[in-house]
Amino acid sequence: MSSDITVAGLKLARRLLNRKFRGAAGEFLVEGAQCVSEALSASAAKKVLATPQAAKQFPDLVRGGYTRVTPQQVEELSDTVTPQGIFAICTTPTWSFDDVFTSQARLVVICSQIRDPGNLGTVIRCADAFGADGVILSPGSVDYTNPKTVRASVGSIFHLPVVADADLKQTLAAAHAQGFSILAADGTGEDLNDLAASGVLNSKIGWILGNEAWGLPHELALADKVVRIPMWGQAESLNLSTAAAICLFATASAQRR
Amino acid sequence: MSSDITVAGLKLARRLLNRKFRGAAGEFLVEGAQCVSEALSASAAKKVLATPQAAKQFPDLVRGGYTRVTPQQVEELSDTVTPQGIFAICTTPTWSFDDVFTSQARLVVICSQIRDPGNLGTVIRCADAFGADGVILSPGSVDYTNPKTVRASVGSIFHLPVVADADLKQTLAAAHAQGFSILAADGTGEDLNDLAASGVLNSKIGWILGNEAWGLPHELALADKVVRIPMWGQAESLNLSTAAAICLFATASAQRR
Repeated sequence: MSSDITVAGLKLARRLLNRKFRGAAGEFLVEGAQCVSEALSASAAKKVLATPQAAKQFPDLVRGGYTRVTPQQVEELSDTVTPQGIFAICTTPTWSFDDVFTSQARLVVICSQIRDPGNLGTVIRCADAFGADGVILSPGSVDYTNPKTVRASVGSIFHLPVVADADLKQTLAAAHAQGFSILAADGTGEDLNDLAASGVLNSKIGWILGNEAWGLPHELALADKVVRIPMWGQAESLNLSTAAAICLFATASAQRR
Repeated sequence: MSSDITVAGLKLARRLLNRKFRGAAGEFLVEGAQCVSEALSASAAKKVLATPQAAKQFPDLVRGGYTRVTPQQVEELSDTVTPQGIFAICTTPTWSFDDVFTSQARLVVICSQIRDPGNLGTVIRCADAFGADGVILSPGSVDYTNPKTVRASVGSIFHLPVVADADLKQTLAAAHAQGFSILAADGTGEDLNDLAASGVLNSKIGWILGNEAWGLPHELALADKVVRIPMWGQAESLNLSTAAAICLFATASAQRR
């Protein structure tokens, strides 16, 4: 079950590279065998696009039918240097606070104005790895269906709820209503290891992570605690995704100890 | 004390963007106020290049004199989208095992064939942040004086010894001679938290980190222990720099507890 892509179909797919159009269409494009596989597993893929060569190489991914594209058309759709020739057009999920702050939830990531698509994808991948219950994005954050974010997440965007454009005060109200403590990661504040030792990390935790360049100036006041990762060298700071990884690892480890 | 860059000077600076030429010249180019400042503090900068505007903006960095470049010449030298117009030509340090495996050394990072310049820079930044005594790179790794690596390290390449092109067996012999245990980070093996709890991480530790795509197939056999970061979600793995951050944070924390 395969047919060539139409001129109109290619145009629609190509427009999904643009954030505005993704928002209007409620769809996004994922690229590469791993992400297409995750999209299919999550029942998020509406349509698979593949070159005849990619269809041969990844028979499991085109079993439900696919739309044929040429290598030239792949170039128009791809965001990578060496494309694998396989894509899926996916429905953008619509998650709400209720999907994240369930009564079972224990670990939530709240991102304030993350601007770099790769950073956001890596944060979502870490959130998934450490069993977080969801990721919440403030207004002004990069779109989590950006092709670079999807790729950096290595499929994790299909594994947990991501709430976009969420007002921070409403987010914290929803978190506090479910008994969460809100920790803001910053270069100042209490030592992460001390919090782990004192048992604070065993409770329900929402981590606020700040912008790459200017951190968390306003949000600090809204947090229950400001927390720093202890450092012993000459580096002044960590980058956003490595800081996120450490905070989430430490929390998930404490909660399961 | 400033003079315009000569045609020959510009040509030499531009050639430092090329790995082969950097190796032959024993020099590399760093870009941006933060990295130039770190290079000056480390006495690694031989010459500062700046536009008149950048010289005004960063008077501390041109106090020792500088070579004037035009915004057009900046475009030829820059690796960034919005260049700050300031560079330093630096001497490539020549570090050896003896600089890393001192009698005081407790934490060393051994990178096997890291290929992505940004990943390597982030790993060096984390090594610095967690007080590591040095970073050792196998043959086939990206050049740590690559402009993208220097930028991602945010100056950390000037803070600790980095030994390039080091044979892995010789590295491990040097490490073992100083009483180091060698841990290989991998998706398999013992749980990092269990090792921390049992006191293993309190000793002198060398971490082997593998290639982004294929991990550590051969090196696993050479390590004293293979260690996995515990994960509880659906993500199959972490990316290299976030995994490195967690291993180094956990070790530095255990050593200081």
